Parts: sequence; C-alpha cells; structure tokens
Amino acid sequence: MSRRFIAAAAQLGPIGRDEPRASVVTRMIALVDEGRRRGVRFMVFPELALTTFFPRWFIADPAELDRFYERSMPNPDVAPLFEAARAAGIGFHLGYAELDGTTRYNTAIIVDEAGTIVSKYRKIHLPGHREHEPERPFQHLEKRYFERGDLGFVVADAFGGKVGTLICNDRRWPEAFRSLGLQGVELVAAGYNTPRHYPLAPEHDRLQDFHNHLSLQAGAYQNGTYVIGTAKAGVEEGCELIGGSCIVAPTGEIVSVAQTLGDELVTAEVDLDRCREIKANIFNFALHREPDTYGLLTAPKRA
Amino acid sequence: MSRRFIAAAAQLGPIGRDEPRASVVTRMIALVDEGRRRGVRFMVFPELALTTFFPRWFIADPAELDRFYERSMPNPDVAPLFEAARAAGIGFHLGYAELDGTTRYNTAIIVDEAGTIVSKYRKIHLPGHREHEPERPFQHLEKRYFERGDLGFVVADAFGGKVGTLICNDRRWPEAFRSLGLQGVELVAAGYNTPRHYPLAPEHDRLQDFHNHLSLQAGAYQNGTYVIGTAKAGVEEGCELIGGSCIVAPTGEIVSVAQTLGDELVTAEVDLDRCREIKANIFNFALHREPDTYGLLTAPKRA
Repeated sequence: MSRRFIAAAAQLGPIGRDEPRASVVTRMIALVDEGRRRGVRFMVFPELALTTFFPRWFIADPAELDRFYERSMPNPDVAPLFEAARAAGIGFHLGYAELDGTTRYNTAIIVDEAGTIVSKYRKIHLPGHREHEPERPFQHLEKRYFERGDLGFVVADAFGGKVGTLICNDRRWPEAFRSLGLQGVELVAAGYNTPRHYPLAPEHDRLQDFHNHLSLQAGAYQNGTYVIGTAKAGVEEGCELIGGSCIVAPTGEIVSVAQTLGDELVTAEVDLDRCREIKANIFNFALHREPDTYGLLTAPKRA
Repeated sequence: MSRRFIAAAAQLGPIGRDEPRASVVTRMIALVDEGRRRGVRFMVFPELALTTFFPRWFIADPAELDRFYERSMPNPDVAPLFEAARAAGIGFHLGYAELDGTTRYNTAIIVDEAGTIVSKYRKIHLPGHREHEPERPFQHLEKRYFERGDLGFVVADAFGGKVGTLICNDRRWPEAFRSLGLQGVELVAAGYNTPRHYPLAPEHDRLQDFHNHLSLQAGAYQNGTYVIGTAKAGVEEGCELIGGSCIVAPTGEIVSVAQTLGDELVTAEVDLDRCREIKANIFNFALHREPDTYGLLTAPKRA
C-alpha cells in the first residue's frame, strides 16, 4: 500500500445544543464528498464531533447528560457516515463521547478505507474541573463528565503506516506525543475543541492559536511524525472556539491550514517515508535518548 | 530579592581555532560592560564559550585535544571575567569543556552576582558520533570527546528564582525540559553551537533556525519558564553556525532576539512571577499530569 497519499483535516463549524446528529452527519458526509473529489484517503474529524461541546454546561439531569453520549459505534445515527466514507474509499478519525455501560469516556476511533474500526483511544489528559464553578462564563467540566482513558496511548497499523491519536488537551503534553513517538507513530490525528477564552488566565486568550500550533508543531518535529490537527471552530452557543486546523509535516512545518471557522476540508499530500528524515537522524531515539536519566518524568505526582 | 530584572543572551561570534582564551575573555568582558550599561543582572554565554567548537575536527593527538578543556574553574584565564562580572553585580552562565581528572564533560556553570558558582551541569544529550567519519565536510564528535553528564538535570536557587541549565542538543528533548519543569524551573539557560549544515539530512539546513526556536518556545510554554537561548554564531573556521539568540517568555513568545551573527547582547525584562500564569493553570502538573501512564518514557532503549 502506498505510503504517499492525500490526507485531510475535516474542520467543523459550530454545532448547536439541539442540533440532531443526523444534521451533523449530513455535514460530515458533505466533507467526505469533497474529500472524494480531492482524492483524499484519510480525514480527521474533531474531538466530540457529533454534538455541541457540552462540557461547557453544568448538567444536573442525568438523562439530559446521557443524550450527548454514544452507546455503540457505529450506531444508526452515524452509520450513514461510515457508509459514505466506505463507498468513497476514505478512512476517517472520529471523536465522540462514549458511554460504556455506566462509564463515560472522551473517545476517538480510526476507521480504515473498508469501514473497519482499527483503533480506539480514550482521552488521558482531561482538562478543566470537576465541580460546578458558577463564577465562570462557561464551564469546562471534562473532569466531571469523563473518566480518564484506560486504553493507554494507542498506535495502529493503517493507511500503510503507524497512526496514533491524541485528543485536544493531550496534544499540549510532550509526554503524550512521545508515548506515540516511541511506538513509531508516523501520523497523529488530534481533534480539539479549544475555547478562545480561558477564564483562569484571560491574558492568554490572544495566544490560543499560537499555543495550538506550537504544541502540534513541536510534537511533530520532536517525534518525526505528521500531525493532523482538526478543530471544532467558530462561535458555538455563544462560546468562541479557535480554528486553525492544519496538517504539520515531520519537520514541524505547517503545510496546510484552515482559512475559515466553519466546515472546511484542509488537505495536503503526506509521504510517510519522510518521517525517516527526522526519526533516523536528529531524533534517533536508539542513539540519542537517555531514558535512565528521565526518572522524574514517571515519579508519582506531588500535590 | 526582586524577581523582576533585566536578563541577557550574550551571543558570541566565531572563535578561531588558535584564538587564545584571553582574547575570548576580553570579548566577554565587553559584553559584561554593555550589560552593566543596560542594567543586566544575569547573562547567558553560549555552550563551549571559551574556545572554537572543536568537535568539528577529528583530533588524534591527546595533547592537542587537551588544550580545549578547562581543568579548574575559575582558572587564571577566566578569572578576569569572574572579576568583571562581580564588579558589575552581574551573574552569568558559562559553558566550557571540562577535564575532571581524566574524564571529559561538556559543562556549564551558573555564577551569581557575588561571583559564587551556584550550579554546575554536565550535558546529557550528546549529539553526533563517536568515530571519525571522513566523508563529512566536518565532524561532530561530541560522543567521542565527552562523557554523558553525571549530575542529572540541575535546578538551582539563584536570582530570586529557580534557574536551570540545558546545553545545546538537550534543548530539543522535551524530556530534558520537563525534568527541569518538574523541579519548578523558572529560567532556563541554554547555550548552543548549531551548525547550519546537517550532513545527515541536508534538506533540513534551511530549517535550523526554525527548529531552534520551536524547541525553545515549546519548552518554555510547556513548562511555564523563561528560556534564554544563546548561540555561538557566524562562520567559524569555515563552518556556519546559526544565531537567533533569544529570550522566550513562559508563554512561549520570543520577546527579544539577536540581530547579528556576532558578539551581541540581547536583553529583556523577565518577571519570574509570570511563570505562574502557566504553572498554576494549563500546565498545573499536580492537577493535569498523568505520570502513571508514561511508562514508555523511561523504558530501556531498544536498539
């Protein structure tokens, strides 16, 4: 299988609190259609792509909360996306809220060109807070609505290479990127919902786009991997989410970037063999890492 | 002691193979004088600041090699720098080749305003190769001429805060930055000698400045620390070294940057209290790191 192909960040604009999944899936299928026209083989949808970013609200009613989660995948609401992508010969990455029995995760899967789910990852670095903080203009209750992922950092064989997943806040943590890099990752899918406004340090609001790209570019370069970062973007239920969806080469260079805050397909050719330029040289882990000096990195946390 | 002061990257231009230390020290004292005029409290000289970057040559004669190393610090050649800095009330970071008995290290020290050595670090991530590779236009024999540092990653109390050291290639490794971050570092001194031309992947020569800044900026942001990156720059014995000496804020922003490839003082005000904007929030390690999931990072190397 060729390791050189067209890949895409499939950015989504805002999703309303009451927008049905059928509507969102229709928008995603429009991006699949556009991908087919551009010869795309793999496209990355955002984190929690099927609904609004519901952790912005404190939701006391369990039934109201439950309706944002998927109990199986694909389920009837999402099946048309699987079918359209399979018919187009396009694989995809999809983030969604998962209800597994009674346990909740912030999850993403990778689906190959044949429509088979080849990997599943549950977000490890959950940002935000656990309790309702009514003084905030909006909440960020991921620590309340999700358990920490229990599947480790996941790299799968797909699209002729090694494909890994990070979800939103994971991408800021070099430990997460490196955990994929040490498994030989060549393409990282990273979906995100990133509010422009950060209530804890609003003086950094102006830096959100910069910090997003800095994290993705450093992770790409320091691990010699392509990265596809995909936003849910735009003003969603009064909350501005950054865009900036992009494709980053293993050199850390942004080679394609979104031009809007709406539904938009961002494409670039990727050549997974180019990862070797970095992996075999400046970041040749076997030659140059010094893991026996890194003990602090895995020491238990201090409060 | 105030945690807000003027800091500087004290960039050096090329040093000739036969340039005596007295000449280099005179150049450094000129930068100390300039620092005094600008109210500097702490300045960072480059890696291996007292001599030419000698790992570019295969040197078979031990006596010829030995002359690039310091056997004590301060020694008579370097004492005038210590004295000038102390008289000016300026602390400094100095990189040099160290001969400790029969063992060789790539070392850097931090000297406080009173002229006292408050920390010593020996480079852990030695780049390059061990054997003579005559097909290269120049060598990079750090793995031959230095042992791996045996002092761990070092953070010292100085200048009212927590000051750490990385040396050249260390700065590219997020593990090294994080090892300082976990010790609460607020200012990282990072000197470097970085050739423009990288024989193993010459297609990346055009990216050397970008990769330098990307690594320094990501390390600053992801650990909430100031970083002062200082080059030995310019065409040294026919080998072009990048410049780009800079001061990076804890937000990852470059707030001051060199304008030349020669001896140049790059200054900015640093306010160590601003590290808290990052350390208490987005990279609050106690709240958001997940070290029990990072086991791969310290696993023994695979060949």
